[in-house]
Amino acid sequence: MAVRVDLNISLDGIAMPANQSAENPMGEDWGRLVADYMATKTFRERVFHDGTGEGTTGVDDRYAQAYFEGVGAEIMGSGMYGFHAFPDDPDWQGWWGDEPPFEYPVLVLSHGSHAPIEFANGTRFEFLDTTLATALERAAELAGGADIRIGGGVGVVRDFLAAGLVDRLHVAVVPVVLGRGTSLWSDLQGFDLDYTVTSEVAESGVIHVTFTR
Amino acid sequence: MAVRVDLNISLDGIAMPANQSAENPMGEDWGRLVADYMATKTFRERVFHDGTGEGTTGVDDRYAQAYFEGVGAEIMGSGMYGFHAFPDDPDWQGWWGDEPPFEYPVLVLSHGSHAPIEFANGTRFEFLDTTLATALERAAELAGGADIRIGGGVGVVRDFLAAGLVDRLHVAVVPVVLGRGTSLWSDLQGFDLDYTVTSEVAESGVIHVTFTR
Repeated sequence: MAVRVDLNISLDGIAMPANQSAENPMGEDWGRLVADYMATKTFRERVFHDGTGEGTTGVDDRYAQAYFEGVGAEIMGSGMYGFHAFPDDPDWQGWWGDEPPFEYPVLVLSHGSHAPIEFANGTRFEFLDTTLATALERAAELAGGADIRIGGGVGVVRDFLAAGLVDRLHVAVVPVVLGRGTSLWSDLQGFDLDYTVTSEVAESGVIHVTFTR
Repeated sequence: MAVRVDLNISLDGIAMPANQSAENPMGEDWGRLVADYMATKTFRERVFHDGTGEGTTGVDDRYAQAYFEGVGAEIMGSGMYGFHAFPDDPDWQGWWGDEPPFEYPVLVLSHGSHAPIEFANGTRFEFLDTTLATALERAAELAGGADIRIGGGVGVVRDFLAAGLVDRLHVAVVPVVLGRGTSLWSDLQGFDLDYTVTSEVAESGVIHVTFTR
């Protein structure tokens, strides 16, 4: 059982662009960060439910496939879930529509109190107001021996990394310089010393860097 | 004639580590940034004058060779030259001993007044208190049609990049997270939009990213 993270970041480490708004809830430069990932065949099938078979099938797609393989539960922050963008919507069920791409239990770290939400495809959002370690224990119960993903956002990922709770970090480094936003790397000085690092460049130009311990 | 930059940076963009001191004039983490570059056969020959033929000969060495090829003049800041570390030494001639690895004219941007210094191997340090554009003009006179390198430090490089004066930027991204120091990428939001980007991973794990326009 491994605790895993996958993130798209810019060459300057930005995982969450600046200037988030109702129109651009992920920030105006989000498209530049995720374009190559969203172009993969796997992402199109799994997240967009695109049955045409279109999409890229190279190195980026191999990582996209691996993203969804072997995960038994996920932990995400309330920002990634969308509570910050839609605080006044009592019926908010996340960004992903009726078929969220997870298909496993997802723990949402939230200070509010919310009943769980279940979907026919196996996705189940459960809301927890607790510590990182307790959330991990609950995720392990739910994952049934499979891996646990820390989904995001970047603040939650940084917290888990800083606490030494992550076994594998995969960053898809997009060779763009965004300049403004939230960096993955802040306050993580030397965290890499406990990991083995490998890198691979995709046909798209995205650099896949994987830290494993 | 191209204006070129080559820098070693960490995965979090640090080009100059923090905590510079007399013992560690480049900062205590400098060794982690430059270890793979300094291990190349080319660096050992050209900078250390190591005649044993030892050193790595893979992708890192290919970039090290390219570093020295086709350059006719260089511009560097006074920090890179060493004025900041040794402000009280009137006989300071840079870090590189009697055979500086440049073997061409080097313009040092400095607010002080200094006579030029010439070495038998063709290196000539000339000290200028002027604008970036004027320094480039003088470098072009000296380079005789060959390329001009902006050598560093990171502040000088950022100034030239922000002014749109750089034709090719090669960063050797070392997959370590230093956390503290001076980032190459600050205030360069979107500068990459004018460039084509290519990336290549060396045997050492260093990721060579090249911006060309």
